Amino acid sequence: MPTISLSLGSRSYDVHAANDLLDGVGYACSRLRLQGRAAIITDSCVYPLYGSRVQASLEDAGFSTSVHVFEAGEQSKNLSTVETLVDEMAQAGHDRSSFVVALGGGVAGDMAGFIAAIYYRGIPFVQVPTTVMAQVDSSVGGKTAVDIAAGKNLIGAFHQPKVVLVDPTTLVTLPTRVLREGAAEMVKHAAIRKPGMLRVLRELADEMPLGFTLDTIASLPQIMTENIEIKARIVEEDEQETSGVRAFLNFGHTLGHGIEASVPYGELLHGEAVSLGMRAALYLSRRYAGLSASAEREVLDVLKALELPLVLPGHIDPAKVMECAARDKKFMGGAVRFVLLRQLGKPFISESITREDMHEALMHLRTPV
Amino acid sequence: MPTISLSLGSRSYDVHAANDLLDGVGYACSRLRLQGRAAIITDSCVYPLYGSRVQASLEDAGFSTSVHVFEAGEQSKNLSTVETLVDEMAQAGHDRSSFVVALGGGVAGDMAGFIAAIYYRGIPFVQVPTTVMAQVDSSVGGKTAVDIAAGKNLIGAFHQPKVVLVDPTTLVTLPTRVLREGAAEMVKHAAIRKPGMLRVLRELADEMPLGFTLDTIASLPQIMTENIEIKARIVEEDEQETSGVRAFLNFGHTLGHGIEASVPYGELLHGEAVSLGMRAALYLSRRYAGLSASAEREVLDVLKALELPLVLPGHIDPAKVMECAARDKKFMGGAVRFVLLRQLGKPFISESITREDMHEALMHLRTPV
Repeated sequence: MPTISLSLGSRSYDVHAANDLLDGVGYACSRLRLQGRAAIITDSCVYPLYGSRVQASLEDAGFSTSVHVFEAGEQSKNLSTVETLVDEMAQAGHDRSSFVVALGGGVAGDMAGFIAAIYYRGIPFVQVPTTVMAQVDSSVGGKTAVDIAAGKNLIGAFHQPKVVLVDPTTLVTLPTRVLREGAAEMVKHAAIRKPGMLRVLRELADEMPLGFTLDTIASLPQIMTENIEIKARIVEEDEQETSGVRAFLNFGHTLGHGIEASVPYGELLHGEAVSLGMRAALYLSRRYAGLSASAEREVLDVLKALELPLVLPGHIDPAKVMECAARDKKFMGGAVRFVLLRQLGKPFISESITREDMHEALMHLRTPV
Repeated sequence: MPTISLSLGSRSYDVHAANDLLDGVGYACSRLRLQGRAAIITDSCVYPLYGSRVQASLEDAGFSTSVHVFEAGEQSKNLSTVETLVDEMAQAGHDRSSFVVALGGGVAGDMAGFIAAIYYRGIPFVQVPTTVMAQVDSSVGGKTAVDIAAGKNLIGAFHQPKVVLVDPTTLVTLPTRVLREGAAEMVKHAAIRKPGMLRVLRELADEMPLGFTLDTIASLPQIMTENIEIKARIVEEDEQETSGVRAFLNFGHTLGHGIEASVPYGELLHGEAVSLGMRAALYLSRRYAGLSASAEREVLDVLKALELPLVLPGHIDPAKVMECAARDKKFMGGAVRFVLLRQLGKPFISESITREDMHEALMHLRTPV
């Protein structure tokens, strides 16, 4: 079983990846000497699929459990859902000796992690991610958050999990579109840290149209492990995003978030918007940071093979995208710190990208690839 | 100007106490090299009294500011108010380079501190407490929280302020009843750490019926400093309440919180409920921990001179108090860790106080002093 360790002093933890690890959640929690009661927080899509397996695993290992289900979707990731869930937890008798199990995709992980960060001023939690996006990216690193009306992820906490348990077999139940959007974050990892991975992702793309089968999944742990490793090393270097290294993970996200926020919820998935944002960032990298046209092309080819969007739909207004991007928390004192690539695998943070540059990049997204 | 330093590694900070320090908030923030914009969070009672002075002080020191006012009272200390305030802050353009100024009593400090802990995953904040309770107790130590339906302070974060600025002149505008309830926490400090302070508090009690004048206040910094010192040393020893030492500060609070929560909001102030809770804890200390009757009497005399309640009002149902106490977060796995005194100044945590013992102590509160 591939294991990646994050070395973060007293907050160190492991990421385990293995097929059918859902049935080992209870064992893993025992091994960590977690005690008390487990509050499983999950969404209305994941609960019917995997809720009872995780609950049984925890109960078999001697934990008593309660399950708290919220309506699936980003629109639930807010303080009102947090309030409902913490009230439920308190009614169920959870106190500072309890721990949280976050079961699901990015929304479940972000919100359950945030609840663990603030319940009784902080209790332990365990990540059990069930989407590509969550497994290779959001479950690792301790960023937790919810959205407020004024913007996405504007409130949250740094709260590292005690362990991350990745079970790739959960991916068989994912729609192809959700698999694809998760792959966008793998392309991002490749672009900023490991260009050699682009070839593997190109091959993976050919499997996508049919969804992942168990056969595909048997081959997944390798690529997933490589991705988790990239994320883990960056988090170790800059846990709370103070030195700037962690900000490299925002490659494609500045305009990506703006695009995502400018359309009604669900029209573009996060990874789809990031695909557009990466194309814009590649364009700016070529213009202002000396990235070669062939490097740009190499990344775009993989995104295209993954059938991720690369052309900004005509009804999306660049002015609105800019307005939404400016509300994003990557802006600071009105200026933006924009991640560019000198070469594939060589990112840096530019403070000289202007709003005009960004607007120009958005206009570039109107052109065919 | 008396200054007390808390030594907490990278989270170390000072508590300054001086008359008219409200006008020095901006200077203090500059000295700390705080940068960016200040979000002043305060309540509807404090804002008209002191809001403009603090704002002017910050603006004079070169900070741009915004003011965010919530309706005064514990009933505002919830996630819904948090959401309103963080949305306002985002609309006002605050980002991770901003900081929060918490201006007011315990509610303002707890909630503004919590907002600072979660806004953009944590920004700096400054405490400017304006009640006795907040000045000698809640502003120091980094405990932030809000209430949920299931209980008081059930969600929150440990987030230390960058500085605490205590201006005792703000106490002239406090109603006598609010002065008295603040004094209850000073009696608590005396009982657990510095019995000699009881004599001074007994003298202070004589000044209370008329409210604090500026003359009284001129003599206050000494006693306030002593109290802050006690709190500071305990927090240094056990910042996140893991070793148990910080739990000594819960003396009188286990049943106190239960009593407070069992009546409609506002019927008993926090310090009033703590006065009743201390009488119950003294009773149990005498019965089970060998506290002398004369020591018990000494503390009760001071509470009585301060005109704090010592007899449980007839309409309060002990069964309901127990039910509310059991929902308090000092309970763990259904058991309670109860702070008792062997002698004045010698607290310990007892794990052997049962629900029956607590009920008996509540019945004792029915008897006259």
